[in-house]
Amino acid sequence: MRLRKKPGVREAMATYPKLVPLNGEEYRGRWREFFGNDNPIHVELGTGKGNFITTLAEQNPHINYFGVELYEEVLIKAVKKAEAKELTNIAFLWINIRDIENYFAPEEVDRIYLNFSDPWPKKRHAKRRLTHSEFLAKYKKILNSNGFIQLKTDNEGLFEFSLNEFAQELFLLKDITFDLHNSEYVEGNVMTEYEAKFVSQGMKIYRCIAAHPAQLAAKFTE
Amino acid sequence: MRLRKKPGVREAMATYPKLVPLNGEEYRGRWREFFGNDNPIHVELGTGKGNFITTLAEQNPHINYFGVELYEEVLIKAVKKAEAKELTNIAFLWINIRDIENYFAPEEVDRIYLNFSDPWPKKRHAKRRLTHSEFLAKYKKILNSNGFIQLKTDNEGLFEFSLNEFAQELFLLKDITFDLHNSEYVEGNVMTEYEAKFVSQGMKIYRCIAAHPAQLAAKFTE
Repeated sequence: MRLRKKPGVREAMATYPKLVPLNGEEYRGRWREFFGNDNPIHVELGTGKGNFITTLAEQNPHINYFGVELYEEVLIKAVKKAEAKELTNIAFLWINIRDIENYFAPEEVDRIYLNFSDPWPKKRHAKRRLTHSEFLAKYKKILNSNGFIQLKTDNEGLFEFSLNEFAQELFLLKDITFDLHNSEYVEGNVMTEYEAKFVSQGMKIYRCIAAHPAQLAAKFTE
Repeated sequence: MRLRKKPGVREAMATYPKLVPLNGEEYRGRWREFFGNDNPIHVELGTGKGNFITTLAEQNPHINYFGVELYEEVLIKAVKKAEAKELTNIAFLWINIRDIENYFAPEEVDRIYLNFSDPWPKKRHAKRRLTHSEFLAKYKKILNSNGFIQLKTDNEGLFEFSLNEFAQELFLLKDITFDLHNSEYVEGNVMTEYEAKFVSQGMKIYRCIAAHPAQLAAKFTE
């Protein structure tokens, strides 16, 4: 994990105890206590400036959302959006996604969103891509067997890589589109900051669903 | 099946009894008798002018190849290529692919190639696409459980559709590339007539492998 750049950031984050639990590991397996309810948990990995996750949280009060982000410069903007909207069904984890299993117990998460993750185009950086099999192995554990991952990206190389990794790790692929904004799946789509910019430039957005491998296994025992 | 346009075509095909068995249904389940050996069977569906399949047949004498094609105008060119190369490990089926199960017994085929199939871009024609689930159900039956389908296309819409259909029909996807000719999979790639033209124009070729669902099932019982 890289060094924190700005002094005082931890203190700034600490001023939002209801939105940024700095002791997140302690809630592993019992986030219902944090939220005070038993609602489903949807997690965005790499939440950036937070437009996506705060919009969803606003739209769906009966789902608990998490924005996971390592970079405090953007995370603080997401937190401020959640504060401005007075959201009580969202929390932010200021952590490295590699450590995600320390924050969620097996099957505790119902859905994972991966939006415009860094493509890490160089082959030697493949392990850093958030859909690398080593990451998928972690997601597979924290994800409920009825849950799924939704991926969006403008990057063809990352999309190609991700499809291969999902298939290899036995996720059940579906609703694959190479042009989300001209597909049937655009209805109800919430855009990230990046996405709005890309779409306004006429760029295509790739998108797919990767359901938990248990759902694939079930197909063979039906 | 559409009407034959030219009179005398059947007679022309009949002049190549070793290359174009017009009684192919009689060999269903016993093509080894036709070839006089027990070699693996690889089938190209929609073989067109036959550059792909005749090149493979030339390169791999210990594999028996089939070119399946409905349109006699192109098929006759493929047959003439095989004749000029004096190939004895290839046969052509002048049939509608919908009837493929009448020509191959369950598990009789070891590999299926789909190259630059008609994309049928209109939604109401989706059932005509050679990767529609109704076709995949047929391929699943004739394909050996260790076998796979290899798909190549220049058409993004067909590729997107095919990935979804393969996944839905529980084929095990692998080696997906959005740009075959700039990928690791280009080694040993044999081009079709269309492909050579497209590649010379700088167009990208999509390609994937879809292994028989039995191979996916085995992953869950390992």
